[in-house]
Amino acid sequence: MAKKILRINMSELKAAYEPVPERWARWAGRGLTSHVIFDEVDPTCHPLGPHNKLVISPGWVSGSPAAPSSGRTSFGGKSPLTGGIKESNAGGLSSQMIAKLGLHAIIIEGQPPKGKWYLLIITKDGVKFEDASHLMGKGMYEVDEILWQSHPDTAVIGIGPAGEMKLSNAGISINDPENRPGRYAGRGGLGAVMGARGIKAIVVDDTGGPGVEIANQELFKQGRRKLTEAIQEHALTKKGGGLNAFGTAILINILNEAGGLPTRNFSAGQFEGAARISGEAMAEVIEERCKDGKGEGTTGHGCHPGCIIKCSNIYPNEDGSALVSCIEYETAWALGANCGVDDLDWIARMTRECNDAGLDTIEAGNALAVAMEGGVIQFGDGAAAMNLLSEVRKGTPLGRIIGQGAEATAKAFGVHRVPTCKGQSMPAYEPRAVKGIGVTYATSPMGADHTAGYTIAPEIAGVSGKLDPLSNEGKAELSLTFQAATAFIDSTGYCLFIAFPILDIAKGWEGMAESVAGVTGMNITGADVIPLGKEILKIERLFNERAGFTTANDRPPEFMRYEQLPPHNEVWTITDEQLDSVFAWVHEG
Amino acid sequence: MAKKILRINMSELKAAYEPVPERWARWAGRGLTSHVIFDEVDPTCHPLGPHNKLVISPGWVSGSPAAPSSGRTSFGGKSPLTGGIKESNAGGLSSQMIAKLGLHAIIIEGQPPKGKWYLLIITKDGVKFEDASHLMGKGMYEVDEILWQSHPDTAVIGIGPAGEMKLSNAGISINDPENRPGRYAGRGGLGAVMGARGIKAIVVDDTGGPGVEIANQELFKQGRRKLTEAIQEHALTKKGGGLNAFGTAILINILNEAGGLPTRNFSAGQFEGAARISGEAMAEVIEERCKDGKGEGTTGHGCHPGCIIKCSNIYPNEDGSALVSCIEYETAWALGANCGVDDLDWIARMTRECNDAGLDTIEAGNALAVAMEGGVIQFGDGAAAMNLLSEVRKGTPLGRIIGQGAEATAKAFGVHRVPTCKGQSMPAYEPRAVKGIGVTYATSPMGADHTAGYTIAPEIAGVSGKLDPLSNEGKAELSLTFQAATAFIDSTGYCLFIAFPILDIAKGWEGMAESVAGVTGMNITGADVIPLGKEILKIERLFNERAGFTTANDRPPEFMRYEQLPPHNEVWTITDEQLDSVFAWVHEG
Repeated sequence: MAKKILRINMSELKAAYEPVPERWARWAGRGLTSHVIFDEVDPTCHPLGPHNKLVISPGWVSGSPAAPSSGRTSFGGKSPLTGGIKESNAGGLSSQMIAKLGLHAIIIEGQPPKGKWYLLIITKDGVKFEDASHLMGKGMYEVDEILWQSHPDTAVIGIGPAGEMKLSNAGISINDPENRPGRYAGRGGLGAVMGARGIKAIVVDDTGGPGVEIANQELFKQGRRKLTEAIQEHALTKKGGGLNAFGTAILINILNEAGGLPTRNFSAGQFEGAARISGEAMAEVIEERCKDGKGEGTTGHGCHPGCIIKCSNIYPNEDGSALVSCIEYETAWALGANCGVDDLDWIARMTRECNDAGLDTIEAGNALAVAMEGGVIQFGDGAAAMNLLSEVRKGTPLGRIIGQGAEATAKAFGVHRVPTCKGQSMPAYEPRAVKGIGVTYATSPMGADHTAGYTIAPEIAGVSGKLDPLSNEGKAELSLTFQAATAFIDSTGYCLFIAFPILDIAKGWEGMAESVAGVTGMNITGADVIPLGKEILKIERLFNERAGFTTANDRPPEFMRYEQLPPHNEVWTITDEQLDSVFAWVHEG
Repeated sequence: MAKKILRINMSELKAAYEPVPERWARWAGRGLTSHVIFDEVDPTCHPLGPHNKLVISPGWVSGSPAAPSSGRTSFGGKSPLTGGIKESNAGGLSSQMIAKLGLHAIIIEGQPPKGKWYLLIITKDGVKFEDASHLMGKGMYEVDEILWQSHPDTAVIGIGPAGEMKLSNAGISINDPENRPGRYAGRGGLGAVMGARGIKAIVVDDTGGPGVEIANQELFKQGRRKLTEAIQEHALTKKGGGLNAFGTAILINILNEAGGLPTRNFSAGQFEGAARISGEAMAEVIEERCKDGKGEGTTGHGCHPGCIIKCSNIYPNEDGSALVSCIEYETAWALGANCGVDDLDWIARMTRECNDAGLDTIEAGNALAVAMEGGVIQFGDGAAAMNLLSEVRKGTPLGRIIGQGAEATAKAFGVHRVPTCKGQSMPAYEPRAVKGIGVTYATSPMGADHTAGYTIAPEIAGVSGKLDPLSNEGKAELSLTFQAATAFIDSTGYCLFIAFPILDIAKGWEGMAESVAGVTGMNITGADVIPLGKEILKIERLFNERAGFTTANDRPPEFMRYEQLPPHNEVWTITDEQLDSVFAWVHEG
C-alpha cells in the first residue's frame, strides 16, 4: 500500500489524503520536509504568517521492523529564528507511529482565527480537530499526562507556553516511551511555527494502521543486520560503550581537554568546573542517588522504541525520583559551562524547565549566557539562571526576550559578542579551537548547528581518522562531506549517532544504504549517500538564497575574528574563500 | 584653508586632524559619510562592536554665509536596526558649527573599556575627552541644559538613555537654537552606534574657527539667490505657505483624504480622528493656548539658524508654556493615527518623551502600534501608550523591547503584521495606497524611509507634476530619480524641503547646484545632481550587498501583498521585477 501525504488546513479545519507526487516519492525525513518547503513555501513569507507551513515526516526506514535506532521524526518549515529553511528532528514515539499509519508526510498549512487553539487527533481514520482550551498555558509535562489519560500509549507532539507565544526559540516536544516530554525538535523555533498554525498538540495513534511496506525484505534484512552489527561493534555506540554508559555528556571532559568547551559566553575554551558537569559526574550522581537499582535515575535510557544505542539518561532528584530526561552534552554545556554554572542539579532543573516550557536548551543556554554578559545576572549563578529561565513561561517581557534566544537577548541588552550564525546559537564546540565545526556552523543552511555536519568526529573523537582541530587544512571539504552525509542520514529516520559506526566500519555504511533500498525499493547503495545528501543541501541553499541569504551570511560572528580564545589563544582563521568553497558547487555545472 | 578630517579614537582617547584624501574631497554630508563607511567599515562587522564607526559631516554649503536652510548634519554608520549602511541627517546647531571649525568630517572609531563614558568637547584647538558620569542616565533636556551652563551657545550632539542602552531605535539629538533637544538624526539606531563608542554627548564650539572658505563668491551668491527666491516663491515653502503656517502635519488631512494615512498598525488607510491630530488642529491649539502672543507655542519655528522655511513648531501646554518642539507630520501620525490615538496632548507628551529618552518617533510609534496589535495595550489609549513608552528610559525588559522598534516588538509578542523594510519601520504613507513611496521603502539602501525618495511630491502634493498614487506605472523610475536627487540634497547641507521649490522652479535646481559649485570650486551644474546622487546610492547598495543584502531584502512586508487596505481595498501590486529594476543599473555598464 503506497504511502500518502496527509494535508491539514488549519484555516478551514479540514484534512485530506493525497497520493505522493512523483517529485517527492524519492524523499523522506529531512529530504522530504525540505522538498515540500522548497516547493510550497514562499521564501519571503513571514515565518509566523499564514503562508508558512509545518511539515512532519518520518524517515525512510522509520516504522519498519527492527531497523535499529530509527525513531527520528523530521519537522520542517521556514524558521522564525534564522529566516531560512529549517529541519529539526528528534526521537520519541512519533516517527514510527506516523510511518505505521502509512503517512509519508503531514503538511500543516493555514491559520485559524486569532485566539483559536486546536488539538489534532490523527488516527487511521483521519484527523479530528478538538478545541485545546483545556491545554493552553500548560507545560508539556502536564499536556503529555492529560493526553495519555484519554489517549494512552500514543505519540504526543506538542508545544509549551513558549510555542503558544510564538517565541523564536520555541521547540516541538515529542513524548518518550514513558510519556515524558523532552525529545525535542528544538532548533530554529519550529514550535512557534506550530503555534502560528493554532496547534497546541497532536496525538498520533497508529492503532490499526497499515504499517510500513517493505519493498525488498531480503535486502532490508541484510542492511539492517550490517548496520546493527556495526553499531554493536563500535566503541562509542556499543552496549556499555561511551554513549551508552555516560550519555553524550561524556564529551564535556574531552572538549574541555581540547580547549574547545565554550565557557562563559564563548570567552574561554576551558571551564574550571567541567569535571563537575561531565557525563562521568552525572553517572556518579545517578549511581549514588539510585543505589541498588532503587530510584528512577539511569544512564543507558532509550529515547524511542528500537534504539540499541540508548545514550539518553534520566537524571534523579536527591531522593532518586526522576527529575528530567535527558541531560545531553549540549544541554549540560549550554546551561552549565557556557553560563559558568558547575552544579548538575541546577542544570537538571533548568533542563526540565526548558522541556516543560518548550524551549531548545542550546539556544536557551546561550540566551542566558548573553544575558549574563549583559549584566542581567551573574555568570555562575545557577539559581538566578533558573529564575530568569522561568520568566519565559510567564510571558513577562523579560521572558519573551530570553525565549527568543541569544540574538534577541543580545539586542535587548546591548551585547555585541553573540555566538550565532544565521541567527541561531552555536552549540558546545568552539570554532576557534575546532575549525571544521566552525565551517559547518557558518555554512550550514540551518544556521549554527553541530548536527548539520559533525566534523567533531575526526577532529576530536578520532572517528573517521584523526585531524588536528586547530588546523584549517581541508576543513571546507570535510564539512561539506559531513553536511551531505548528515542530510542523508536525517532522511533515513536513523539517529545521527549511527554516523560513528558507519564512518569507521564499512558494512555499517553499506547496511544503512541497503536498508533504505530494501524498504523503499529504490536503487540506493553506499555510493549514493553523498550525492543524495547534496541534492537536499542544494534545495535548502536555494531556498535560503531566495529568502535573501548570501555568502555574507556564511560567516562566524565578528568577535571570533579578532578575539583570541584561551587556552590556545586562537582566533577564527578560516578564510572567507574557504567558507565560500563549501557550497560553490550549488551554482556550478 | 583646506578643510580637514577630525579622527577620534575612543579606544585610545586620541584625536588627530588629517588632510582630506582625494577620494573624499568631492563629497560632503551623506555623500561623505557613506563613502567613509564604505571605505573603512567592514560590512559584516557587528554594529555595536569595536569596528563600526560613527561619521559626522556637515553638507557642502553648511556654514557658508546665508545659504538658505542649510543646517543639516549627516550622521553615518552601519545600522543596528537594518544591518546595512545608514545616513540620518537633522537640523539644529551642529552643522554650521562643525563646518565653521573647518571640519569636513568627524570620524569616531574604537571603543573605551565597558562602562566608561565620555563627553567630547570639540573646539578650534582640538578635542577634550571629559568623563561623562554626571550626565549618565539623563534625558536630553537635562543634558542640553547642563552643557549650556558650562558651554553656552554651543551645538550639543547627544544620546538619551536609549542610546546608552544601545537600543536599536536610539537616535542622536541635536539642540535647536533655543537649546531644546528634538532635532534628531533619528532613524536606524545611530544613537546606539554613538553609545557603543562610549560617547554620551559632543559639544561643538566654533568660536575662533576658520569658517567656510568660498571658492567662487560670485557663483555662490548667484546660486544662493536663485535658490532663496525659489523657496520664497513656492506655495509650500514660502513665508506663510503650507509648511510655515501649519508645519509638516498639514499632511495629515491630505493623506487621510487620499486613503493613505496608515491607521492602527497599517490596517486601514483612513483614521476617523485625523482632523483632531492635523496641522490645522495643532495651529488652533497653539492659537488658543497662546493668545495675543502670550506663551511659547508657535508655528513657523526655525530649527536652525538661517532657515527661511521654518516648518517647525512649538507645541504648548495648556498654560501656554512650551511642551515640545516639534510635532512633525510623521510624529503626529506615528504616535497618533498609527496607534489610533486622536489626542494631540498625548501625542505631544509622547514626542517629548521620545526626544528626551532619545528615540526616533517614527520607529517608536510603530513599536507601540505593533505592541497594541500584540495585545500589550489597546489601540487608541494614549495614556497607556505614554506609559509603555516611558518604560524605555527605565531600561525595563518591556522598555528594551519597545526601544528596539517595531520588528523586535513584533517578535517578542508574536505579531507577523510588521510594517518594516530591511528592519526599519515605515513612515506615514501607505504603500498600498501610494505605490511609488512603497518602491522607495522597499528599495532604498536605508530601509523604509520616506525621506530617501519622496515620491509623495508628485503622487500626493502635486509637486513636479501630478501622478495617480494608486497606479504602478513609472513608479520604479520615479523612485530612482527621487532617491538620486535626495542623495545629492542630503550631501549639500540643505534641508530636503528645498526639494519642493527646486522641482517646480528651474532656477531653484540650478541655484542649488551653483551654490555647491561656488562653495567647493567643483564644476557642478544642475545636470550633475542625478548622476552624483546615483554615485552615492551605488556605494550604499554595494555596502549592503557585502553586508548580505539581496533583492529579497527589497520587498515590502508580506502582509501587504495579501491583505487589502481600506478604503481603496488595494494590495501591494508592484511586481518584484519592477522593484528589481530600480537598482539594476548598479551592476550594469
